[in-house]
Amino acid sequence: MSVIAEVTAANDRYAAGFAKGDLPAPPGRKLAVVTCMDARLDPARFLGLEEGDAHVIRNAGGVVNDETIRSLLISHHLLGTREAVVIGHKGCGMLTFTNDEVHEKLGPESESIDFQPFSDVAERVRQSVEAIRSHRLLGDGFGATGFVYDVGSGRIEPV
Amino acid sequence: MSVIAEVTAANDRYAAGFAKGDLPAPPGRKLAVVTCMDARLDPARFLGLEEGDAHVIRNAGGVVNDETIRSLLISHHLLGTREAVVIGHKGCGMLTFTNDEVHEKLGPESESIDFQPFSDVAERVRQSVEAIRSHRLLGDGFGATGFVYDVGSGRIEPV
Repeated sequence: MSVIAEVTAANDRYAAGFAKGDLPAPPGRKLAVVTCMDARLDPARFLGLEEGDAHVIRNAGGVVNDETIRSLLISHHLLGTREAVVIGHKGCGMLTFTNDEVHEKLGPESESIDFQPFSDVAERVRQSVEAIRSHRLLGDGFGATGFVYDVGSGRIEPV
Repeated sequence: MSVIAEVTAANDRYAAGFAKGDLPAPPGRKLAVVTCMDARLDPARFLGLEEGDAHVIRNAGGVVNDETIRSLLISHHLLGTREAVVIGHKGCGMLTFTNDEVHEKLGPESESIDFQPFSDVAERVRQSVEAIRSHRLLGDGFGATGFVYDVGSGRIEPV
């Protein structure tokens, strides 16, 4: 069975038991989570989030960049969230390469792309938290807190 | 109790029962999911994904833009995924405003930001799928399929 057929079948089972069809769009817990796309991370499970609780923004590295800010501005100003948690993780793939290495692997057409690798997860989380706290359009009390998730233990630790 | 204290306590419970500490970084099902940050969406649950199965990329609208492509290039070329599913959803907040309206609400300092609203979810998903399929650096057989998730029923429908 193809992966598409598998996830469609899994969705049939989810929809058959679905009883959350009347949730409002604004996150009930007024929280936005920013974390990595890494397959080992299930932030809803590891933070105890139910459908309707929190925005979840994910990208390669769980970094806060201009595009993450776009999502956070919508989250805060249009949908009422009050704070973000930024969660990096041990064993992140972004620690394992440089831009030069990816440009070499993918060829000249990739050279205009900054893949945004980093060499220290906790430090990158601190930079992301600071980027939120100091943003000129998030200065009205929107909070930010940083954590590192340990893929070996399932535990988050504050940074 | 603050939200931060609540999610930290929930994480303590998750970590206490954690038994997935030896998963490899490359997604086991070679799948990348692109979807919206919307709080009502829990893609792991509604697609039947376990920790280790799939990359999950989320932003305001679940749109494929240059930053989404950055994540997908890393997902495919460095971590071995073979296809993406792009999932928009009914009732998306991105349908409810224009750039002009947000610029007015947030003030002159926001005017350089394209908030990337859209007026038709299925059409935006089709554009995202096409952006993946036609990308010059994803032309080596990386697949893309589009769906719209119904927040009222929990069901995904292909577009």
